[in-house]
Amino acid sequence: MELRLIGIGMGALGHVTLDGMESLRGVRTILLPQKGAGKEDLAHLRERIIEASGTAARIVTFDYPTRDPAFDYATRVELWHDEIARRWSAALEGSESPVALLVWGDPSLYDSTLRIAARLDPAPQVRVIPGITALQALTAAHAIPLNRVNGPVTITTGRRLRDEGWPEGAETVAVMLDGECSFQTLPQDDLWIWWGAYLGMEEEVLHAGPLPGTTPDILATREAERARHGWIMDTYLLRRGPGG
Amino acid sequence: MELRLIGIGMGALGHVTLDGMESLRGVRTILLPQKGAGKEDLAHLRERIIEASGTAARIVTFDYPTRDPAFDYATRVELWHDEIARRWSAALEGSESPVALLVWGDPSLYDSTLRIAARLDPAPQVRVIPGITALQALTAAHAIPLNRVNGPVTITTGRRLRDEGWPEGAETVAVMLDGECSFQTLPQDDLWIWWGAYLGMEEEVLHAGPLPGTTPDILATREAERARHGWIMDTYLLRRGPGG
Repeated sequence: MELRLIGIGMGALGHVTLDGMESLRGVRTILLPQKGAGKEDLAHLRERIIEASGTAARIVTFDYPTRDPAFDYATRVELWHDEIARRWSAALEGSESPVALLVWGDPSLYDSTLRIAARLDPAPQVRVIPGITALQALTAAHAIPLNRVNGPVTITTGRRLRDEGWPEGAETVAVMLDGECSFQTLPQDDLWIWWGAYLGMEEEVLHAGPLPGTTPDILATREAERARHGWIMDTYLLRRGPGG
Repeated sequence: MELRLIGIGMGALGHVTLDGMESLRGVRTILLPQKGAGKEDLAHLRERIIEASGTAARIVTFDYPTRDPAFDYATRVELWHDEIARRWSAALEGSESPVALLVWGDPSLYDSTLRIAARLDPAPQVRVIPGITALQALTAAHAIPLNRVNGPVTITTGRRLRDEGWPEGAETVAVMLDGECSFQTLPQDDLWIWWGAYLGMEEEVLHAGPLPGTTPDILATREAERARHGWIMDTYLLRRGPGG
């Protein structure tokens, strides 16, 4: 079986690449998660991309399992990937190849699909079609560079930022998978933040400025928008020093 | 003036997003660098994208200045950006807005166009259209994740890797702007490398494996391919530990 992991960007139809559209048009099967409660917007975005591609593929669906809180984080993730792989196999029983999976952002960046695909037996032939990541949607929305001239960038998770603080030697830190506004746990004095949610979508909201003064705005906006939409996907960039 | 910085990915027409194509179609002027000797392939790729978009925009060109080796790195880059901004202004004299600039990869990642645009007087209204970066093209070609589960990623430059060695606390290091295979300067024992050149193009070449054993292959391929094409753009990812 050929399995195409297609990066679809952050929700805007315009984020999809020409390769992404062509890959989708060329498959016989599309593997989609069931619509979860409160996630209808995301399901709608996926449907819009599938429709725009003009594909005639058959759609099969699976349900995401819940993660078992009885285990530590690493084990929990492993078991969760195992279970998703089982559900993919069951859903794909008898389906025709190639199969497409639509992946938010890019399949390489804090995404599980490559790891889950590696668990399938027999092993599929995996093709990755890159997509626009949250970081690119964020920097584009703010019209800022990710790095300073010749400067390094650290990409990390909210969990690591809470556990380990500011990464050693870092100048610019991009934070992913942070549902808890973990920047609040940092000493804030000399940090600037560029924050965004619903990036690339009509609902896009942005805040930027010195971290101490901008934190209350972000917290208030995040709570209000999440209440309004029933879900939120946000990401942010922190940089040391004045003027960002 | 509205200035659209359009990320066009790594050279494959298929890397361009639907937004990128639409943005290009909607401009009145396109600002392009002159073809440099040995860079005809790159100029050809840009022309192919412009043609595919169906835009009726007028094309104006500028020459890249050379960097003055009499200054230190930071000053040299500043002066170079100043001079490019002057040349853009001269080239755009009397041109109609919106203006498009095609940017390799994504305008946020180790690219100068945002900094040069900030020097224009009067200041343009800048819009950024994100594109596929070299890192995404690299991980897609190798079908690997950029990060380990919950793991951090450091993006840095060849220059920094040579000057400072392995970044403190790093697990995965992506290296950009490295014309000197600076991974050779590192202690190599426990590192794995995923390397690629001409990513996303027909000419794409890849190597991956434990760094000590893979280094000679990369050096040989790099020299042969550069001789054959007259230019090379490559990038790579390093990770600590067995099996990458």
